[in-house]
Amino acid sequence: MKCRKCHKKAIHFQPYSGAHLCAPHLIEDIERKVKHTIRKHRMIEKGDTIAVALSGGKDSTVLLYLLHKLFGERPDINIIAITIDEGIAGYRPNTLRHAKEITSKLGIEHIIASFKDEYGSTLDQIVAKGGEKGPCSYCGALRKHLLNKTARENGATRLAVGHNLDDEAQTVLMNLLRGDVERMVRMVPACAQPGLILRSKPLRDIPEREVALYAILEDLPVDFSECPYAYSAIRGEVRDMLNDFEVPHPGTKYAVLRSLDKMAEPLRHNFPQQSLNTCSICGEPTASDICQVCRLIGREG
Amino acid sequence: MKCRKCHKKAIHFQPYSGAHLCAPHLIEDIERKVKHTIRKHRMIEKGDTIAVALSGGKDSTVLLYLLHKLFGERPDINIIAITIDEGIAGYRPNTLRHAKEITSKLGIEHIIASFKDEYGSTLDQIVAKGGEKGPCSYCGALRKHLLNKTARENGATRLAVGHNLDDEAQTVLMNLLRGDVERMVRMVPACAQPGLILRSKPLRDIPEREVALYAILEDLPVDFSECPYAYSAIRGEVRDMLNDFEVPHPGTKYAVLRSLDKMAEPLRHNFPQQSLNTCSICGEPTASDICQVCRLIGREG
Repeated sequence: MKCRKCHKKAIHFQPYSGAHLCAPHLIEDIERKVKHTIRKHRMIEKGDTIAVALSGGKDSTVLLYLLHKLFGERPDINIIAITIDEGIAGYRPNTLRHAKEITSKLGIEHIIASFKDEYGSTLDQIVAKGGEKGPCSYCGALRKHLLNKTARENGATRLAVGHNLDDEAQTVLMNLLRGDVERMVRMVPACAQPGLILRSKPLRDIPEREVALYAILEDLPVDFSECPYAYSAIRGEVRDMLNDFEVPHPGTKYAVLRSLDKMAEPLRHNFPQQSLNTCSICGEPTASDICQVCRLIGREG
Repeated sequence: MKCRKCHKKAIHFQPYSGAHLCAPHLIEDIERKVKHTIRKHRMIEKGDTIAVALSGGKDSTVLLYLLHKLFGERPDINIIAITIDEGIAGYRPNTLRHAKEITSKLGIEHIIASFKDEYGSTLDQIVAKGGEKGPCSYCGALRKHLLNKTARENGATRLAVGHNLDDEAQTVLMNLLRGDVERMVRMVPACAQPGLILRSKPLRDIPEREVALYAILEDLPVDFSECPYAYSAIRGEVRDMLNDFEVPHPGTKYAVLRSLDKMAEPLRHNFPQQSLNTCSICGEPTASDICQVCRLIGREG
């Protein structure tokens, strides 16, 4: 098949748009969409320091590369990268190497913060101790906490994360299937709160498959390995469900995101953001006196 | 297994509640839930004439029987049944016979209105002519139109329809997957409008399986056959999807309905009901000058 735009050989078909695209026009299409997403949701503004949460996986690497390509020349916008080293043997060292490679190639400041330094234990050690929660519960809370702290301490005004269209559509559906409208509403960040860096998701309109293709086409140093702990039964089921449904009904993932966007803003008044305190132990923002992380790692006692 | 309530032999297990129930306690449980639904959503009030849309299938037959059981003795509440005879050979005559049987058994006034009398053609004739839309599009619009008209002309203040939990959860999910938040919001009726009888769904909290069991246990004359035209590919897929997901995650259908209830009320302000006009041809309520039905059946020309 030929590219819809230039009639050269197409390398990708977008079932949701009906377009066959060659490599340069796929790249152009992705970049156009990301620019549109950033503008529409005002994800980046003059004077911002954008901290990119860089795991070294395909999504965050593409995100960093793209933001650098689109905004790297802008004197009024600063981009830095933060990688959290949770301490996961056999997985994180590789992705860390890739993260270092891309930041040094692009000349972007790279900050690495580790669970070991911050919390005194690696994730492997926490898991080995056998807590009451699964590895992903610990990791998610601790990583978010440390990302926010590190971003703030490095002067970031925004924290950009690599969630793609598939991730977002899955999360909307998971929240609906759980009756958790509050969490669904919180997927679209409202306004900044003291100490909490506003998160943004510039890849939310790019299908996972196209993010992967972009990484390959731009020859980015990307690690496609998966975290050994990462196994969310429910997300896996929802992912399969959505992927199966997308085939006969292309565009469904976009439609789910459209549903979220139509609902989240008006619903915000009904599920208002809690105003945050400062954790009396670590000083990070929290809705109660002691933050979830200090509780999880037993700093209370 | 033994019934959770009386230790007699259980005939049904509710995975979402963990309860095994005997026949009398399942019936009790269903009736308690329906009463709760009616009260919570103020579906029936003093002085109401409830028109039950009675197809003769399990859902509407159980609905009629239940409303008669719960409210039949109330002097301030009147129950009537309306059956629409679309004119579907090999299907409707049987269900019509069952509808007549239950209404005469319960001593409930039964009004039958037909497409043939109202629109001059049976559904079979409309389908044979080969319109631009599928049979279900014609049938849905015409049936709704005729139900509303017949209910109003017979003094009904409410129109009760037999949608069960599965139907409702499927519709929420379908609307989300299509990005159609407007239609999702309209699933929960707002306020009455001139000429439009308010619809209610007293079975919305009863799983389809339990509606079917209730019909069998109460020995109701029910037709389990399916309409020969009824084939919605997308609803079938969504039904399978939800049923598959419900097995490892019991309670999901209830959670989806909870999501709807949390969202619909607050979102109503953002997607306001259109104020209705009167169709210049048939006089029924419509958002434009000529109603969808008059357009569909070519009454315009």
